[in-house]
Amino acid sequence: MKGIILSINPEANVVDITHNVLAHDILDGALAIGNAYKYFPPKTVHVVVVDPGVGTERRPILVAADQHYFVAPDNGVLSSVFEQAEALHVWNLISEHYFRQPVSKTFHGRDIFAPVAAWLTKSWQTSSFGEPITDFVRFSMPKVKVSKEGARGVVLRADHFGNLITNLTAQDVPALLEPDSKLSICVGKEKITKVVQTFADGIAGEPVALIGSSGYLEISINRGSAAKTLGAGRGAEVIVSSNGH
Amino acid sequence: MKGIILSINPEANVVDITHNVLAHDILDGALAIGNAYKYFPPKTVHVVVVDPGVGTERRPILVAADQHYFVAPDNGVLSSVFEQAEALHVWNLISEHYFRQPVSKTFHGRDIFAPVAAWLTKSWQTSSFGEPITDFVRFSMPKVKVSKEGARGVVLRADHFGNLITNLTAQDVPALLEPDSKLSICVGKEKITKVVQTFADGIAGEPVALIGSSGYLEISINRGSAAKTLGAGRGAEVIVSSNGH
Amino acid sequence: MKGIILSINPEANVVDITHNVLAHDILDGALAIGNAYKYFPPKTVHVVVVDPGVGTERRPILVAADQHYFVAPDNGVLSSVFEQAEALHVWNLISEHYFRQPVSKTFHGRDIFAPVAAWLTKSWQTSSFGEPITDFVRFSMPKVKVSKEGARGVVLRADHFGNLITNLTAQDVPALLEPDSKLSICVGKEKITKVVQTFADGIAGEPVALIGSSGYLEISINRGSAAKTLGAGRGAEVIVSSNGH
Repeated sequence: MKGIILSINPEANVVDITHNVLAHDILDGALAIGNAYKYFPPKTVHVVVVDPGVGTERRPILVAADQHYFVAPDNGVLSSVFEQAEALHVWNLISEHYFRQPVSKTFHGRDIFAPVAAWLTKSWQTSSFGEPITDFVRFSMPKVKVSKEGARGVVLRADHFGNLITNLTAQDVPALLEPDSKLSICVGKEKITKVVQTFADGIAGEPVALIGSSGYLEISINRGSAAKTLGAGRGAEVIVSSNGH
Repeated sequence: MKGIILSINPEANVVDITHNVLAHDILDGALAIGNAYKYFPPKTVHVVVVDPGVGTERRPILVAADQHYFVAPDNGVLSSVFEQAEALHVWNLISEHYFRQPVSKTFHGRDIFAPVAAWLTKSWQTSSFGEPITDFVRFSMPKVKVSKEGARGVVLRADHFGNLITNLTAQDVPALLEPDSKLSICVGKEKITKVVQTFADGIAGEPVALIGSSGYLEISINRGSAAKTLGAGRGAEVIVSSNGH
Repeated sequence: MKGIILSINPEANVVDITHNVLAHDILDGALAIGNAYKYFPPKTVHVVVVDPGVGTERRPILVAADQHYFVAPDNGVLSSVFEQAEALHVWNLISEHYFRQPVSKTFHGRDIFAPVAAWLTKSWQTSSFGEPITDFVRFSMPKVKVSKEGARGVVLRADHFGNLITNLTAQDVPALLEPDSKLSICVGKEKITKVVQTFADGIAGEPVALIGSSGYLEISINRGSAAKTLGAGRGAEVIVSSNGH
């Protein structure tokens, strides 16, 4: 893919965001690009190839969201981008003369997404790549349920250090930002009552909760792996309640 | 190595193709560069350091193949490139003033291959780096045997997803491209009769065969790992025959 | 972090040195940057984020060492750089207008180190980023003890191939460079008497000792992993003595 991009536009600056998206995992890909894209400069073209349905009827799409561009399969991998974008335009990629020919049935990253991304950086004429669509696939990112008893969310992913990133924010549970909030955070059978500011505030080995760098509640163990110690991962339920509940 | 390259030519665009070649495995390296190089632009210099014999008598070489350049140890790691190239020139790298001094006995990637690659991008004077040779090392990539009963090949490697990439192509077995071909593909004790177009055509958990993006027959399991499920890897025999044989 | 850098300076050439530093391991980070930085061109800005204490009172610092620049937490991760540098200047990063706001408590790589590195490449005005300090944190890299009986060092790390890199050099044991030196090198229960020039000089499976590409004594197994075979890793004691001792 990098070779194809540089063959079309030798001036392109190709940057790897991550190669650690879980195989075939569209939600994990959606979270990765959803967390990263806004830190890149305007007019970045993001090539997002988490594509278990490659070669089937699923469409390839081009997306303009605020000042960012995305090429990806139409399988929901851009759902988090769609949630965050204010101005959103989506095209079904049907202009096959921009594709590498012959198009394989199994590697559209190389044959469709990389060449379209590279050609886009030369013209910025989005409308020449396909026809506008509005029925693109988007799934709801997992939502938090807030009730009088507290807030109920899930673990979205475990990061490189074993921190468990949830979908809960301080908007869901304002007490998370209070210095002496008495909260219980339950993940599986574990009940965490220590809410800290940063990783090093925990005693080694002790699970703690904190608001992470993307604004989400994380479960962490100082210099350890919460994912391993708690045996929890993506989809695990996380319940935040006032102490005593 | 990246630092050395950028110290010599700050304008160089350094791109990682892969860091996942199996340690000390020249065949795996040969397949990786053989599959990737042709997608890069003309005048790309490919630095290929799979070098278990570093510091021994094995020579360092510079290769011009069609419009691509390669620096590598003379150990066969460019065999797949040699098979594909039409115009081929090879030099033994003896012009030591292009090397980083002192040259270590254990890291020619840093001391020979990176600096030669960088200096080459400044002059493109291949002949100034050494003397032409024709007795460079090349091994035969594993060959398919075709008989009346069918075709016999091997698994070349398992990819990141656990797909088993073989050395068989549709030229060896034209029936692979026919819509209702009745073929049996045997890998170890497993007999696969379903030939599909793309990964998602398989039922989850069912091994299927398909022609992959480099033209080779692959054994795949939709959203699973064929390598793990079949317990097969590099060198496993693959026999394709008409059903009933 | 790459997005932040390119947003501030689109002309920046961002290069990954390694993503394989052991999690939370400041010594491993110190070794990685200490071995790599000097191969990069003058005026390279090295962003070194091994930062278990992120969000605590530990300071963020900017370092000018010879002609290289570093941004890092003040936790000792630059200790090897400090040992090697002749001209050394260190600033505490207090000019918050160069930070990304709001600064998170858990990801200063994104909010402090990446933006400071990018702004530095635009002005090179080091003094505008903070105030000079001299009480920065540095720890002693593990030292070799030399006596009449021999030299006593430690394994610093195991590399990608399983080679055990020690802190012993030929300055500590000049006999390592002699062709027929009769040395014993003890690592755990293993006693190694074969000192070779390069990896391939060993018989497959046999542990050997050699001076590696950074000048340090390494324990290696030709086409195997010394770390696995010897069951040794970081901190293991290594004793070099004349044969018979």
